[in-house]
Amino acid sequence: MKTVELAGGVGGAKLADGLASAGDAADLTVIVNTGDDFEHLGLYISPDLDTVVYTLAGLANPETGWGRSGETWHFLETLRALGGPDWFHLGDKDLALHVERTRLLAENWPLGRVTEHLARRLGVRSGIVPMSDDRVRTIVESENGPLPFQEYFVARRCSPAVRGFRFEGAAEARPAPGAVEAIREADWVVLGPSNPWVSIDPILAIPGIRAALEEKTVVGVSPIVGGRAVKGPAAKMFAELGIEPSALAVGRHYQGVIKGLVIDIADQRQEAAIRALGIEVLSTAALMTTAMDRRRLAHDVVKFASRLADGSAG
Amino acid sequence: MKTVELAGGVGGAKLADGLASAGDAADLTVIVNTGDDFEHLGLYISPDLDTVVYTLAGLANPETGWGRSGETWHFLETLRALGGPDWFHLGDKDLALHVERTRLLAENWPLGRVTEHLARRLGVRSGIVPMSDDRVRTIVESENGPLPFQEYFVARRCSPAVRGFRFEGAAEARPAPGAVEAIREADWVVLGPSNPWVSIDPILAIPGIRAALEEKTVVGVSPIVGGRAVKGPAAKMFAELGIEPSALAVGRHYQGVIKGLVIDIADQRQEAAIRALGIEVLSTAALMTTAMDRRRLAHDVVKFASRLADGSAG
Repeated sequence: MKTVELAGGVGGAKLADGLASAGDAADLTVIVNTGDDFEHLGLYISPDLDTVVYTLAGLANPETGWGRSGETWHFLETLRALGGPDWFHLGDKDLALHVERTRLLAENWPLGRVTEHLARRLGVRSGIVPMSDDRVRTIVESENGPLPFQEYFVARRCSPAVRGFRFEGAAEARPAPGAVEAIREADWVVLGPSNPWVSIDPILAIPGIRAALEEKTVVGVSPIVGGRAVKGPAAKMFAELGIEPSALAVGRHYQGVIKGLVIDIADQRQEAAIRALGIEVLSTAALMTTAMDRRRLAHDVVKFASRLADGSAG
Repeated sequence: MKTVELAGGVGGAKLADGLASAGDAADLTVIVNTGDDFEHLGLYISPDLDTVVYTLAGLANPETGWGRSGETWHFLETLRALGGPDWFHLGDKDLALHVERTRLLAENWPLGRVTEHLARRLGVRSGIVPMSDDRVRTIVESENGPLPFQEYFVARRCSPAVRGFRFEGAAEARPAPGAVEAIREADWVVLGPSNPWVSIDPILAIPGIRAALEEKTVVGVSPIVGGRAVKGPAAKMFAELGIEPSALAVGRHYQGVIKGLVIDIADQRQEAAIRALGIEVLSTAALMTTAMDRRRLAHDVVKFASRLADGSAG
């Protein structure tokens, strides 16, 4: 069965890993947020693509949630000694990916082709497709004015309160080649347990992707468990926008897009309220601590999506 | 006493190290060839500047003659795994220098200011000045047509026979700030034991530098010992241009520029022929294997230059 997952960074990447191991890895295509992409030291950096690539290649650092395991830091230590900007942590091995991607982009390869090439070189069998080859930039409208995402996320550590989000260039962006095709061929589409505001919404803001999803059974996985974000600022963003962070809030956020939502058993008492939105619910253990957790959650998500796609949901 | 050395890579850097340790390091200014500079992976690479900076910082790799000691190669190994271009050996620490230089150049710092900043950060007390902030490119006119220097040197391993050399942009290039001033203030100028064709000639091709030298006592150090180049393709270049490689040939090459030439004792029998060119000669042990050799040769060169500058030679 063919699955498409829309994903941001860590949470989406973990579920992708589970989905790839649960069935034939080649049957999975992950469409990845590129709204956080930025340039640093002349390098094109794509944090979510990197996390998904490293995770599916079995190279991700399980402790940090970004970068590679077994990384070394001689470049960054030397850059610091030279007085260079060391706020963005570039490992020696990780750096090679950014340098080679930047080189290929400078040779006019589109981002999707670069991503496919690099993922294949690292042994990834699933498809990994950026949401678009065109530049889309997530802007955080904050109490301190508009901030590019990395400025908000890394330099300001998510501290300014958010008022909203803009995805610059999204309305004109075309889906990257392969994205819409993968959705059309998929038996269902999963919105990974990524930040709805800044990981999934930028992907949904690409008109061609949004349109293709309308024909499909789409299932969401809540990144909010017990009122808190598993990782990152999602809960903080909900709260600052005046919405109590909860699995129910995630359901409301995705209303009209998803047919079903997977939530954690900790949030089971919200099932009825989510069902009242016209969204089917599966309560299960949604935290992915171990590799086993990823496979089990992926298995549950696939079974749930399969049931909804068959129209046999009750 | 203030000394200026014109230098290319390894040989010139070793003598500079000797000169810096022989007196007050701050009294030495090294004007460095940038005709070999090139771009690789989007980085501005300046092989001779790097060798001089690393050598004077005590960081040079004594075995390779380029790069840093205690270097690691995780970036390059990963780049190779990704299918990227790995022909130019970039160590993890070395890479930081190139990245930071490229970043500062992109912020419109001139090359000389970048070089001074990076050398100071690495603890270098001597002046290191590129021959020009303007781009000058050494082109090797070879039997296979014109080749940019790095293409000839690294990719083709100096294999095509040379017919001549061009220094693109040299005629219009201005000396980097500090270069002419250092020559004016110097008690003498030393042409380091670097390749005359592709290391020293590009510097001499900058009109402002050539003019400043005319007022000065200039002493050369032969890079040809016993008919062979201590390192690199200098002897091969002499031969392919129809000139028997020898200390005498070096003397002829620099005739009109130098007042004295330091040659190895192995070439002592050429002393008379060199004197016949109107060039004073010092025969000494000119090979620099150990740090002690560098200091001793530097000491001999300084004494010789001092004698010539006093007009007491003969």
